[in-house]
Formats: sequence, structure tokens, C-alpha cells
Amino acid sequence: MSIRIGIMGYGNLGRGVECAVRQNPDMELAAVFTRRAPETVNILTKTAAVCRAEDAASWKDKIDVLILCGGSATDLPKQTPEYAKLFNVVDSFDTHARIPEHFANVDAAARESGKVAVISVGWDPGMFSLNRMYANAILPEGKDYTFWGRGVSQGHSDAIRRIPGVKNAKQYTIPVESALEAARSGKNPELTTREKHTRECFVVLEEGADAAKVEQEIKTMPNYFADYDTTVHFISQEELDKNHSGIPHGGFVLRSGVTGWEKEHHHLIEYSLKLDSNPEFTSSVIVAYARAACRMAKEGQTGCKTVFDIPPAYLSAKSGEELRASML
Amino acid sequence: MSIRIGIMGYGNLGRGVECAVRQNPDMELAAVFTRRAPETVNILTKTAAVCRAEDAASWKDKIDVLILCGGSATDLPKQTPEYAKLFNVVDSFDTHARIPEHFANVDAAARESGKVAVISVGWDPGMFSLNRMYANAILPEGKDYTFWGRGVSQGHSDAIRRIPGVKNAKQYTIPVESALEAARSGKNPELTTREKHTRECFVVLEEGADAAKVEQEIKTMPNYFADYDTTVHFISQEELDKNHSGIPHGGFVLRSGVTGWEKEHHHLIEYSLKLDSNPEFTSSVIVAYARAACRMAKEGQTGCKTVFDIPPAYLSAKSGEELRASML
Repeated sequence: MSIRIGIMGYGNLGRGVECAVRQNPDMELAAVFTRRAPETVNILTKTAAVCRAEDAASWKDKIDVLILCGGSATDLPKQTPEYAKLFNVVDSFDTHARIPEHFANVDAAARESGKVAVISVGWDPGMFSLNRMYANAILPEGKDYTFWGRGVSQGHSDAIRRIPGVKNAKQYTIPVESALEAARSGKNPELTTREKHTRECFVVLEEGADAAKVEQEIKTMPNYFADYDTTVHFISQEELDKNHSGIPHGGFVLRSGVTGWEKEHHHLIEYSLKLDSNPEFTSSVIVAYARAACRMAKEGQTGCKTVFDIPPAYLSAKSGEELRASML
Repeated sequence: MSIRIGIMGYGNLGRGVECAVRQNPDMELAAVFTRRAPETVNILTKTAAVCRAEDAASWKDKIDVLILCGGSATDLPKQTPEYAKLFNVVDSFDTHARIPEHFANVDAAARESGKVAVISVGWDPGMFSLNRMYANAILPEGKDYTFWGRGVSQGHSDAIRRIPGVKNAKQYTIPVESALEAARSGKNPELTTREKHTRECFVVLEEGADAAKVEQEIKTMPNYFADYDTTVHFISQEELDKNHSGIPHGGFVLRSGVTGWEKEHHHLIEYSLKLDSNPEFTSSVIVAYARAACRMAKEGQTGCKTVFDIPPAYLSAKSGEELRASML
């Protein structure tokens, strides 16, 4: 029988989950839950229902895993513990500093209900975390580097849009090639986030706005841009629509370490992602972990899990025999 | 209490395990077992015993995990099931085609004894397999590419050494940069192993040997070289010792896949290794999985496991709390 998936929240991530479910023949989308009026939400899957978020509880026995596609700032801290009382759930909670607190809240709820809740799934946190962890376990003496990009930072794009005179904007975070090379070199340099990344901004101005002033405001904005080499390009709305409508992202996780009795040998482990669509890739990771959640729940496991806790094979639709014969 | 490690077989891999154990403060090397006369084997760890392989059984209760460092051709098919009757074991069995058979034999032995046996640990099979598996689970529609090198192939080096007139030789397998770029391009090209790799040979001739004849024999050798672009360099023994005494290796695992309702978005997942010492890196992976074997055994698990079956966190000396706070 197919794994029945529910989606809570139908934004970029929810749509990504819908697409990913379609690519996995052992799954089916049962329902999408939304805070909007259901009749105004057009989903792509003809066989799935669109329901009000408040009615989710009535789907308790018709959904194997509910995927929570809300934001980390306000939605997930509330939603994940709440829905873990009723469903096996997966979320993509990505406020790194608050993960321990979120874990504790979700774990308590999921243990009480006897459900499985997988949190912080995606690529960072998610696949990048996994690669950091594996690489640290293999090379206990070494140094970690994470680079992000080339990719769109939603937070930085929003910050530019709040400047008076700005009509629209898109910001790309770009890894510095020479810093990447330094990290790969085995010399274990100390690199700050600023040294590792530059920021490139494409800005559409309101009519009559002062370009020099806007550029100055961007480049001196504390936290967001002041500490970075920032480039600002002024372009037309047409150009923005044509060349900057995507949501690409990616990055690199490296561990540079040593082995040998005298630590005489150097090793480099590198993992990288180049993603045309950040939300669709994140969704694809989430859907694989939904399969794992379903399997763990069937085995009688309960509580909160992260990517660190889940045997890799649980992500795959293939059996252990198939995996060993084809991929080991 | 420390995890007590035993090493069966003290070649390059065994020495690598010894070095790796030293880098992990939660482990200690208890004993090295050898088929040679123990008094002729000098190990680096002053506190560990050197014992005859036949006496291993008497260490049954003094070792938590026995690491089997023999070869895949004849040693491990016999040793791993045999020692899984007495110990939790880890091996690096790397004959991909015979893994299902090896798994079945080891699983039967380990289930009967109530021990945990982890097989085929290293980087390929091992970390490369894991990355293939994760990437396939995340991007079910796509194409896999594995490139090996730049690195020393022991088998190919040995094959050259068997040619009359050859005194010594070292062979490097080298990924073709343009093929790697094609794999990364998202065009999903079909690439044969030949198109993906070239072979470079450094050969020391016996006095009076015919260089042209040796070169011809290398380049036309079936299976090993005939299907590849092969370069042969004749060098002195001194030059070989000076520049080619290491055992570097590495490679790349890529998955190029698509997402989106119309499969309109492309993604590239890439994992790569650059290793100064192939056996020391392999040993470092094995030692991390020895920690996992010990932990699974303590939980009461039994039977044969592969990297696919083991939760990532089990490889780390850190607790779940520490991992979530520092690496997620």
C-alpha cells in the first residue's frame, strides 16, 4: 500500500513536496491543508483533497505522514509539537540555534502520542549536517568549512526590498573561489564568513529613486551587508523577471583532516550541491525522510528524530537486498 | 570505559587502524593478531599485545570489536564468518559482485553467536556507496556517475610488475576532466569507464630490458589497459622511490537529477575524496564503524550490517545532544 502523504501549507515548499511525491511511486498525496480558503487554492494533483488547516485532525487515520511546510520563525515551533500529537510528521525547521529546544518540545509530544517526528530535514540543516557529522566521525582531527551559494538568500532580498526607493530586489550569496581553494589546500586556514562569501544584488528602483543613495544604504546595512564585499546592479523589472526569477542555491561542505602516526597524511572530504530550485530540492529530501518516518512508525519507534538518527536505508524504496546488490 | 579494539592482520590496513584508534580517545588498541611470528612484528602502540592469529579466541572477552584487515580475495570470505562467531567484527570486503553472498554467510554466523558484524566498510564500498544511496533516495529520477582517482591502483601496478623486464611499477588511475565536466553539466551523458578514466604508468626496467616491447605489452594488456588511454613513463628506481612511494587515492560520486512537476529543475549532488593515504582513510572509516558496532551490540542488535543500516550518529563519540547542538 502506498504511503499516504499530507501537506500542511501550500507555498513553495508545499508545492515542492507535491512534485516530489509524484516522483516516488510508493507514495500518494492524500490532502493539502491550507490556512487560505480551500476553494482558492489550486493544487496540481487531481486525486488529492484541499482542506482547511483546522480540519486536519479528521484526517488522522487517512494520512501516514504529515509534512509541515511552514516557516521556522513562527509556524513550526508551534505546529510541529501540535501535529506530532496526531500524525507522524516531518519538518524543515532551520533555525540552527533553536534546534535543541525544538527537539525537546517535539520529542515530548511525539512520545506521548506514540508518533515519529523528524525535524530539521532539508540540506542545511539536513544533508550538509549529515556530511559534517560523517566527516567528523571519520577524521576526528581536522577542520570544517561550509560555503553557501551561488544562491538566492530570501532574507537578504527582503532586506533590500525594505529600503525606500526599492521596488524589487534579488540577492545572491556567492562563495569566494580563492577561499574555497584555501579550504581545499590542507593548510587549514581560519576563514570568516565574510572572507568566504560575497553578496551580489540585483535591484529594481522605484521611479525617481536615488540610485547612489540606495546603493549606499545596501552596502552599509549592518549584519546583512556591511561586513561583506557587496556588489549592486540596478536593472529593470523586465530583466529581473527574465534572468532572476529562479530560486537556485547550493554550497559546499568540506572537512580537511589528517591521519597517520605522526599525522603525516592529509585528506579532503567534500560534499557539494548545485540546485536549480532550493525549495524543490529541500522537498525531495523531506519526502525521502517521510518514507523513513513511516517505516520507523511501523516498527513501533516513537519520538523526535533527526537525520543523525535514521539508518540511510530507511530513506530508500528499495529493499536491503536490492541496495546491497546495486549500490554498495 | 574505552572500546577495546583488536586488529587481525598487520599490513597497510592494520597499521592504518592502529593509527586511527590513537586519534579516537574513546578507544584503545588491545591486541594485534598476525599469521607471522609475533616476535617479528613491531607495532607502534606500546600498550597493545601482539599475538598469534590462532590465539584470537582466548581474547573473546577482552576485545569489544575485532577489525579484520585481510584481503577480499581469500582472507575475508573465510575470516569474517569465522570471527563473527566470537567477536563483533568490521571488515572492508570490497568485491562488489560478491557482497550479497558474503552478507548471507556473515549474517548467519553473527545471528547464531549474537554478535554484530559490519561488512564492506571503507570508501568504495563505504562512503561512496552511502552517497550513491542518499542521492538516489533524494533524486529518484537521475543518473549516477562514479570516477576514481587520481590514485594508485594496486592491481594494475601488480599487473605491470608481472611483465618480463619490469623491475618495479606504479599505476595511477586518473579521472578525465572533460568527462567529469560532462557529468556535472546536467545533460546526463552516457560515459563508459574508459571515457571517464586514463591510466598513467611509471615503470622501472630491469637492466637490458626492451622499453618499446614493455610499453607495447602494457598498452595492449586485455582488461587492465587495452581499453584505456594509457601513458607509460620509464623512470629510475630512485625516482620511483622519491616521487611515487605514496598510496594516494580518491574519486567523485555524482548524481545528476531533476525535480518539478514537468521535471524542469536540475540538481547536482557531488561527493569527492582526495586522500594522501588510501589505507589510512579506509581505516579511519572502519574505526568509526567499529564504534557503531560496539554500540549496536550493547543495544542487543545482532547479525550482519552494512553502512546502509547504521544510524549516522552511531559513528560519533558525541552524544545526540552534542551532535544536534554543534553539527545539525
